[in-house]
Amino acid sequence: MAVGPDTFPSTMHPVAGFKLGVASAGIKKPGRRDVVLMEIAPQSTVAGVFTLNAFCAAPVQVCKRHLETHAARYLLTNTGNANAGTGAQGMADAQRCVDAVAQLCDVAVEEVLPFSTGVIGEPLPVDKILAVLADAKADLKEDNWTLAAEGILTTDTRLKGASTQIEISGKTVNLTGISKGSGMIQPNMATMLGYVATDAKIAQDVLQQLLSNATNRSFNRITVDSDTSTNDSCILAATGESGVEISSDADLAVFAAALDQVMIDLAHAIIRDGEGATKFVAIEVEKAASQKEALDAAFTVAHSPLVKTALFASDANWGRILAAVGRAGVENLNIDALQIWLDDVCIVENGGRAAAYTEEAGSAVMAKEDITIRIVLNRGDIAETVWTTDLSHDYVSINADYRS
Amino acid sequence: MAVGPDTFPSTMHPVAGFKLGVASAGIKKPGRRDVVLMEIAPQSTVAGVFTLNAFCAAPVQVCKRHLETHAARYLLTNTGNANAGTGAQGMADAQRCVDAVAQLCDVAVEEVLPFSTGVIGEPLPVDKILAVLADAKADLKEDNWTLAAEGILTTDTRLKGASTQIEISGKTVNLTGISKGSGMIQPNMATMLGYVATDAKIAQDVLQQLLSNATNRSFNRITVDSDTSTNDSCILAATGESGVEISSDADLAVFAAALDQVMIDLAHAIIRDGEGATKFVAIEVEKAASQKEALDAAFTVAHSPLVKTALFASDANWGRILAAVGRAGVENLNIDALQIWLDDVCIVENGGRAAAYTEEAGSAVMAKEDITIRIVLNRGDIAETVWTTDLSHDYVSINADYRS
Repeated sequence: MAVGPDTFPSTMHPVAGFKLGVASAGIKKPGRRDVVLMEIAPQSTVAGVFTLNAFCAAPVQVCKRHLETHAARYLLTNTGNANAGTGAQGMADAQRCVDAVAQLCDVAVEEVLPFSTGVIGEPLPVDKILAVLADAKADLKEDNWTLAAEGILTTDTRLKGASTQIEISGKTVNLTGISKGSGMIQPNMATMLGYVATDAKIAQDVLQQLLSNATNRSFNRITVDSDTSTNDSCILAATGESGVEISSDADLAVFAAALDQVMIDLAHAIIRDGEGATKFVAIEVEKAASQKEALDAAFTVAHSPLVKTALFASDANWGRILAAVGRAGVENLNIDALQIWLDDVCIVENGGRAAAYTEEAGSAVMAKEDITIRIVLNRGDIAETVWTTDLSHDYVSINADYRS
Repeated sequence: MAVGPDTFPSTMHPVAGFKLGVASAGIKKPGRRDVVLMEIAPQSTVAGVFTLNAFCAAPVQVCKRHLETHAARYLLTNTGNANAGTGAQGMADAQRCVDAVAQLCDVAVEEVLPFSTGVIGEPLPVDKILAVLADAKADLKEDNWTLAAEGILTTDTRLKGASTQIEISGKTVNLTGISKGSGMIQPNMATMLGYVATDAKIAQDVLQQLLSNATNRSFNRITVDSDTSTNDSCILAATGESGVEISSDADLAVFAAALDQVMIDLAHAIIRDGEGATKFVAIEVEKAASQKEALDAAFTVAHSPLVKTALFASDANWGRILAAVGRAGVENLNIDALQIWLDDVCIVENGGRAAAYTEEAGSAVMAKEDITIRIVLNRGDIAETVWTTDLSHDYVSINADYRS
C-alpha cells in the first residue's frame, strides 16, 4: 500500500562520471538484488549527511571518518542487514567490506564508503557480500539507476527516484538520485538512504553546504513515526564531467533549487510509501516568530498519535490539532490569535471552531489522500513545512508482526 | 479492556470535612451520573495543578484565577463536555456554572472551582447542569467517594481510587482520592482529573508544594500517547478536621510518602485503563547525570511507536529500545557504556545485544502483562521512572472511530 500515484520518473538521466552496479548476495532472500556498488570518477567532490542518533551503526561511523579526509570513489551498499548494534565485530565487518572494495578497485581504503540497511543486531554476512563484489563491479554503468534503486530497498513497496536537468551557461547539468525507506525509522530495518549525483563541478565545502541545506528542506522535514534511525545517510556527489562549474551566486541559486526539488521528491516518495500510510499530509506552519517554534509546532502535530489516527479515520477532528499546537512548547502562544486550515477550509480561529466551518467541508478535505494542514500562528514571518502520514491499523500490524 | 486486576480499594476512607454529591444531568447520555459536587469545610486549605497546554480550557482558566485569591469551598465537575475550544462563550458558560453554585451554597464566586471533561468544541449545556445542582447538593456526604468516582468518568472502563491512613502523633490521618482518564489525552475527551482530600491540617503554601512534588512523581510520569490534555487538573484539599497539623519535617516526610503513594496509585490506574492497553510498562532510567536526561530517555522510549508496537506484539525487540535511547538527545551518550534490562534479563550491553541474552528469556518477559524496561546509563546517580502502555490495534480503533 502506498499513497497516490507512483512517482518514479520515466527517465532517470545518467550522470557522466557516476556508475552503478548491482549484484545478488542472498543476504536475506536468495536471488534478490541486495548489493549495490557505485563508482565516482576521480576529481569528483563528495558530501554526506548522517543520522544524529547516538546509537549510530558501524558503517555510518566508517563513512564519517573516511569523508573527513578523502573524497569517496566507491559507495558499497548492502540491504538485508544494518550492521547496527553489532559492537566491535560490526566495526571489523564494515572494515573488511571497504578493504575488499579498495583492493578490487585499486583505491585507498578511505576512498570507499559502506552503507548497510536491514535487520539490527545480526552479524553482517561479510563473506556473502565479498563473494559478489566482482559481479557488482562488472555491472557498473551510468544508465543503471533503476536497478540500483531496486537494489537498495528493504520493506519498501516502490522504487524511489528523482531526476532533473537544468541549463547553466548554455550547457545541460544533470541531477539524479535514488532513496529508500518506508518508515522514518524501522529500527529493525534501518532506514533512510539517499544517493544523489550531478555532473556539475562544485567545490567540496560548497557541496557540503548545498547538501546540508537541501536535507533541511527534505529528509529532515519528513516523519512517519518520530523515530530516528541508526543508519540514515545521504550522499551527494559532483563529478564535474558536464564541464559546468557552479560557483557564482546566480548559478548556485539555480542549482540549489534543482537539488531541493530532487531531494524533496525523494523524501516525499518515502512518506508516500510510509508503513501503513493511507494519507500524504503536509503540515505548513506560517507566521511563526522563529524557525524553532515553527518546527516544534509542525512536528508536534505530525507526531501526535491522536492527530494521526484522526487522519486515518478521515475525521476533521480540529480539537486534536489545536491541542497538539497548544502543547508544542511555543512560548506565550496566544491560542485566540491563530488559525488552522485543512486545505482551503478554515477550521479553527478565535480559540475554537471557526464560525463558518461545517463538518461537511472539513470531511470533504479529510476524505482526500493528499491533505495540507496549515497553521497560521500570526506571531512573525517564518514558515516551515513538514510531511507525514496517518497512523493506521496496518502500521500497527507491520510493526507488531515484523520479526515474526 | 484494562491491564491487570482492578485496583479500586474495597474501602475508601471518608475524610472529615470533605463531602461529595452526585447527580444526573443527561449531558451526553440520559440517566448517566455526570455531575459531581464536592464540598470542602471552611478553614480548609486547597492546592491545584493544571495542564501546561497553551490551549487551556475555560474551566481551567477559571480555576487558576479563583485559586490565586481564595481557598475553594466547592468543586463542580461535569463529564460529557470539556468546555474547551469554546472561546468567549465557554468562559461565560463556566462563569454561569460557578455563579449558580455560589448562589445555591451561599459562598463567594471565587470559592467555587469548575471542572469539565468530555467532547471538545461543543457548547456546554449549562441549563442541564444548573437544573441538577440542587440534587447534587442534597446528595453531599462524606462516604460518597465511590459514586463520585463513577460520576467523573468518560470513556474509562474502571473506577479509579486510592485511600490510605497514617498515624501521626497517635492520631489517624485519612488520605483518599479519585481520578479519571484513559489516555494521557484524548483531546476530544479531555482528560485527566484528580481529586485528593485529607483531614490533616496543612498550610496552603506547604500543601501546594506537596501537591506539586507528588504530581511530579505520579501524573507527570505517565503517558499513553504523548498528548497533553487541555483540561488536566488535580486538586488537593486539606480540611484539618483530624486535628493533626502537619508542619514538622518528620511529619511532612510521613505525609508526603503517603500522598505520593495515593497519587501514584491513581496515576497507575489511568495507565492500566489506557486506551487499547494490553501492557502496563514501567520505564526506569538509572545512573543518569541529570533528571532532564533521565526523563528525556524514559519518555522517548515511552513515546516511541516502534517500542510500543513491539510491546503489543510481546516482541523483545531490543534494537528499537536502544535506538530510542540513542535519539533521546542525551549529550555525548556513550552507547557502549549503557545496559538495558527487561525485568531481570539483560538485553543490551557493549553497544549491542547482551552476550548471555537469549530470545527465549526476552520473550518470557515480554509475554507478561506487567513489564519493567530498565535503562542503566552509567553516567551519574539520578533515577527516574515513567509508566506507559503499548500501542495496539484497539488504540487505533478507539481513536479513529471515537467521533463516529
